[in-house]
Amino acid sequence: MAGRIVLIGLGSNVGDRAEHLRVALQRLGSVPGIAVVRASAVVESELVGDGPAQGKFLNAVAELRTNWPAVALLALCGELETMAGRVRPAPRNHPRPLDLDLLFDGDLHIDSRELVLPHPRWHEREFVCGPLRELGYDLAALPKVERPAVIESPVAMAAQCSRWLAGGCVVGLVPTMGSLHRGHASLMELARQECDRVVATIFVNPLQFGPGEDFAAYPRDLTGDVRLCKQAGVDAVFAPTVAQMYDPEFCSQVAVGPAAATMEGALRPGHFAGVATVVARLFALARPQRAYFGEKDAQQLAVIRRMQKDLGFPLQVVGCPIVRETDGLAMSSRNVYLSAEDRAASTVLSRALASAQFAWQQGERDRDRLLARARVVMAAEPRAQVDYIELRRDVDLAELPAGPVADVRMLIAARFAGGVRPVRLLDNARLGAGSWS
Amino acid sequence: MAGRIVLIGLGSNVGDRAEHLRVALQRLGSVPGIAVVRASAVVESELVGDGPAQGKFLNAVAELRTNWPAVALLALCGELETMAGRVRPAPRNHPRPLDLDLLFDGDLHIDSRELVLPHPRWHEREFVCGPLRELGYDLAALPKVERPAVIESPVAMAAQCSRWLAGGCVVGLVPTMGSLHRGHASLMELARQECDRVVATIFVNPLQFGPGEDFAAYPRDLTGDVRLCKQAGVDAVFAPTVAQMYDPEFCSQVAVGPAAATMEGALRPGHFAGVATVVARLFALARPQRAYFGEKDAQQLAVIRRMQKDLGFPLQVVGCPIVRETDGLAMSSRNVYLSAEDRAASTVLSRALASAQFAWQQGERDRDRLLARARVVMAAEPRAQVDYIELRRDVDLAELPAGPVADVRMLIAARFAGGVRPVRLLDNARLGAGSWS
Repeated sequence: MAGRIVLIGLGSNVGDRAEHLRVALQRLGSVPGIAVVRASAVVESELVGDGPAQGKFLNAVAELRTNWPAVALLALCGELETMAGRVRPAPRNHPRPLDLDLLFDGDLHIDSRELVLPHPRWHEREFVCGPLRELGYDLAALPKVERPAVIESPVAMAAQCSRWLAGGCVVGLVPTMGSLHRGHASLMELARQECDRVVATIFVNPLQFGPGEDFAAYPRDLTGDVRLCKQAGVDAVFAPTVAQMYDPEFCSQVAVGPAAATMEGALRPGHFAGVATVVARLFALARPQRAYFGEKDAQQLAVIRRMQKDLGFPLQVVGCPIVRETDGLAMSSRNVYLSAEDRAASTVLSRALASAQFAWQQGERDRDRLLARARVVMAAEPRAQVDYIELRRDVDLAELPAGPVADVRMLIAARFAGGVRPVRLLDNARLGAGSWS
Repeated sequence: MAGRIVLIGLGSNVGDRAEHLRVALQRLGSVPGIAVVRASAVVESELVGDGPAQGKFLNAVAELRTNWPAVALLALCGELETMAGRVRPAPRNHPRPLDLDLLFDGDLHIDSRELVLPHPRWHEREFVCGPLRELGYDLAALPKVERPAVIESPVAMAAQCSRWLAGGCVVGLVPTMGSLHRGHASLMELARQECDRVVATIFVNPLQFGPGEDFAAYPRDLTGDVRLCKQAGVDAVFAPTVAQMYDPEFCSQVAVGPAAATMEGALRPGHFAGVATVVARLFALARPQRAYFGEKDAQQLAVIRRMQKDLGFPLQVVGCPIVRETDGLAMSSRNVYLSAEDRAASTVLSRALASAQFAWQQGERDRDRLLARARVVMAAEPRAQVDYIELRRDVDLAELPAGPVADVRMLIAARFAGGVRPVRLLDNARLGAGSWS
């Protein structure tokens, strides 16, 4: 009988475990087009991962010869599990009368929503490795799936995401400029929960830096960044060079209107066109269904939401809460450039926001009196040079008339000049959005 | 046994046909998780469609009860066909010992590269309809797939394309402003050959019309357009209103640099930003792998190619040859507004190009002498007011210095004022690109 060699893992920890494994192999072999070539001896193992207290597993690995496509084998395995009495849906890691996993399908690589081959964790499981060794396999020669993949070329990135899309995956994108901290990790962890595949991008985008700004000096640490991405469960890190992102004849620009004109847009001409252009390019390349941005750059988030709506990218822009140091300073890659004195003084932004927040909780709703509360706090810190303190409509950061306000966000930008280079810090808070310390 | 009811069609026209059908049903019923509930009597039928001379088919329809996913049943059917002696790959419509088709899977609609359910042509086949009636089905109550789907909402369009992408389909996009003619049909037919699903868009885009231009008067005929799309095999027609494409707060713009500054760009300020913006929006919404544009609007094609590269849309922009009337006039939706006299005179553009083409074939390579050939022809037609005659580098329409040239395209624009409204005509040709009449 012709066909590919497919390796499957079998497990059982409920009832007559050996009988469950025996019946499963007998049923597999009775299916037209499938032959069970051989099976390992059974081994006993504890549950891997979390789960309620339960009995040990009996495990084995079997070699099938078949022409059946992997997706049909997967359905068949699910059906055999059901026939053995397994209930679906069932909580994760509950006791199972039968658990069948596809491990390898010849040299085939599959990376779809339902099925990843080779099995992504086979090499971490002794109850798979042991039986494989017994069957004579050289474990070092068997293929592994490495995560995260580190991808430099935009074409390769687009191709990887295309394969995931064609496999039915929900792809989550986390665009960053690298130099990652816990704030970034929180975006990736949320993406990990909500998506089938997570792509983090690391690219210091020259288009969004002005002539006198810190493009060259922006902190960079790809090795550390990849390590953090791995810990956060990222599937691919896209880290192109500037030349790979923008060819010599690159000349298009995505311009966003009023949302980009004030605050950061007024102080950094061209900044938001650079942001909108690179984010549009990342959306176009990766075609994610969800994209994650921190609320720390609240105006950037508003600009990106507008661009996403206007150009029609069919994805959800997800804004994530600011992550703070224990003393309240919002996390930022540029914080490392603060002098010790400026670092101590830098909490003034979060204190100013907290002061407005407190006034709000006391019932204050007047625009200018809320602003005055924050201004008083900022003015008391001579190391901070305030660029702006603004109170804006939360949903799109539109300006508000004087008088009573509702659904507002306060935004502050200030410069600190005491370190090796001047540092601008941004912070913001939705007033009335619960307490934060 | 629980499960969904799945209807399959069986056919055979080689060997012991009844035995092939009987064995197939017996093998299906022996697979864990699949029960054959009942089968129709067999009926005899001729081959449908083209193919070599061959024997008649024996057909039947069977009802299965199963929990298997449809895609796994499809793979199983393929395996059973192979076991019956069917060779793959085989030419289309050759004799088959066994042919299994999924017809219905409960109420499920599937529209992937491998599988469309309900079967898109079940109702056209008496060898399916007869057995279904025999099994007691009310054919009028069974679902049909209507093509093309006419879709107005951008969200619905994006969702449809998402389903196709997740099903592994290659999606081809044909953006148009409607008022379709044979030129458009040629784009759709090429897309039909090269893609799994074809989306035609019909949208007269206000962003690309200047204040004094013919936005309101641009010809519109959705009913006729949908008819042409159906004939060309289009799967979905996307025909949004202006309000659906651009919400009241829409404010983003995609600007393209030098390629958009001369010729049409100089005469129609803002035109190409409008084109680049709407095409970027269509690319973002539909996420096609291929997009088709006519070469008649050669500069538009160059602008779109630049935008596609710069924003990184992972798709192939396909330029398609100009389709002409028998007298040489390039097809255009605006041709209908030419007066009879202007219509007769309008061949001057293609004659001017032909004259330059003839000079090229005679060995002329000098930029200005080639231009002079075309100018002489245009000047001889007083009804045509020339906007420009240009010779540009073919690949990106960059300007060329005086002297000898290679790989060039000649572009002409002229106005005709004799009809109910003035009409601008465009035409162009790659010099040396074979003869055309």
